[in-house]
Amino acid sequence: MSGEFALIARHFTRPVRQAALGVGDDCALLQPTAGQQLAVSSDMLVEGRHFLATVPPERLGHKALAVNLSDLAACGAQPLAFTLALALPRVDDVFLAGFARGLHALADAHGIELVGGDTTAGPLNICITVFGQVPAGQALLRSGARAGDELWVSGQLGDARLALEAFRGQVALGADFDRVRLAMEQPQPRVALGLALRGLASSAIDLSDGLVGDLGHVLRASGVGATLQLAALPRSALLAAQPVALQQQCLLAGGDDYELLFTAAPAQQAAVRAAAASAGVPVHCIGRIDAAPGLRVLDADGQPLPGDWRGFDHFAAP
Amino acid sequence: MSGEFALIARHFTRPVRQAALGVGDDCALLQPTAGQQLAVSSDMLVEGRHFLATVPPERLGHKALAVNLSDLAACGAQPLAFTLALALPRVDDVFLAGFARGLHALADAHGIELVGGDTTAGPLNICITVFGQVPAGQALLRSGARAGDELWVSGQLGDARLALEAFRGQVALGADFDRVRLAMEQPQPRVALGLALRGLASSAIDLSDGLVGDLGHVLRASGVGATLQLAALPRSALLAAQPVALQQQCLLAGGDDYELLFTAAPAQQAAVRAAAASAGVPVHCIGRIDAAPGLRVLDADGQPLPGDWRGFDHFAAP
Repeated sequence: MSGEFALIARHFTRPVRQAALGVGDDCALLQPTAGQQLAVSSDMLVEGRHFLATVPPERLGHKALAVNLSDLAACGAQPLAFTLALALPRVDDVFLAGFARGLHALADAHGIELVGGDTTAGPLNICITVFGQVPAGQALLRSGARAGDELWVSGQLGDARLALEAFRGQVALGADFDRVRLAMEQPQPRVALGLALRGLASSAIDLSDGLVGDLGHVLRASGVGATLQLAALPRSALLAAQPVALQQQCLLAGGDDYELLFTAAPAQQAAVRAAAASAGVPVHCIGRIDAAPGLRVLDADGQPLPGDWRGFDHFAAP
Repeated sequence: MSGEFALIARHFTRPVRQAALGVGDDCALLQPTAGQQLAVSSDMLVEGRHFLATVPPERLGHKALAVNLSDLAACGAQPLAFTLALALPRVDDVFLAGFARGLHALADAHGIELVGGDTTAGPLNICITVFGQVPAGQALLRSGARAGDELWVSGQLGDARLALEAFRGQVALGADFDRVRLAMEQPQPRVALGLALRGLASSAIDLSDGLVGDLGHVLRASGVGATLQLAALPRSALLAAQPVALQQQCLLAGGDDYELLFTAAPAQQAAVRAAAASAGVPVHCIGRIDAAPGLRVLDADGQPLPGDWRGFDHFAAP
């Protein structure tokens, strides 16, 4: 058995419990439930773009799966399984053991399993494809936002970007650094919330590229505009203590939040709060959907905020 | 719209014809046929390992999908759709246009479509995940070979490796170089053959890492051994004209053949030949499965061939 295959077998092969066939043949075989649609998403993580070289391998394994599960959450899909393709500059057993531990721990937490993939030599690159299922016609899409809908977000925004700025030496956080670093390196996909929002939310997206950029996708797909209330954006006490310009950057264009941004009719407000409570995730109403195109950001006094807010662009300079 | 998204939209977004939802939301949505299992495979291609920097982008787009379709073929699965995750060192429009052309041409030839994926900056890396479907219980697996079965291979072996040796300057091929280069850069996945072999073949695998290495996977999974007839291995006239040692290396440990290696009971021989004819692919019987473990390679005189034949290992030095 060559090094490549021994490597895969050692760290990533575990007996499958749900799939008809797992790692070790040319294909994995899945048996989706009758009447359900299969939801598929694929995310590729590259060092320096999606994680820093200093990330502990266990957290990297967690994050690589978490960002993919976050896409399923945004569609209201129940996770089923995933594949992992991995390019490694060298066979580093300590790295692989930690990476696999973090990966499997999150998979176990969601009752899903690794069913196949690929391992090769090359510059470090992690590509995960996740599979979920959702009853036909019930998936949450970006295109369903309607004028008058309320705009909601889960959790808190901006801590991951705050951690990145601390890594870059732009801000000193002292003893609080470890906590925001966890927000950046170990995000929690909002799968339970996505499931609870089926039939309630009119649209949903997960926040990976920053609030303004991702909201823009919803507005374009739905053919609507929106007004955001800056003061309503949920943030940690640590972020709230930072200079206003940094706060705004982290909240509006932060990236790596992996919270759900969703819309719902005002009549659903109580149901949305109940769904969030059942999922154990705080949600906040942060604005509304307008018929007029474009995005307006209002400050605490209701005044439009000037500024060119762009989404986090993976091709922009870091 | 940031550069990353404009890039995806321009080259890779086409209206989906079969999927319930294609590129542009958090997930794609597929509707597998009732009673079918979903076959999934994922392959990652890295420059210098799976392709050379000199490959024309259109051929690279073809090959990236072809190697994945080859995995579906080996399972006897009907291709449905695929996702593409792409890391690019820069946004190179000429490269992307050619890559997308080759990719879509092969997808069209198999009636499948790109339903989602990811694009990011990073060292060049191509990760495709393919989805197919197969009636429950009918997938061709590596584990079904039985003592007494005949061992078959499709097409010809070794031309891709011969091309690699020519690129490396180990052999001069003159005017024939372009043809073997095509074998390396533009393999044809044996999807129709895989479908035709359902119910006939007892096991199957696609040849990506070399005959001996991939046959080893079948033997281990099935708990059997095998005897190969070296003289029976199908090869081009060009390869047959090379020195014996080079021929053996290319045939037995070549890699990148993307032919199907499969087993079938001797009673199925006529049915296998008919299936291959219906798929328009030549097949050759190259040996048999033995109860005794291990692999024996016999030369034209029936004498065991000495030598340490290892599969192409992606972690071995090139």
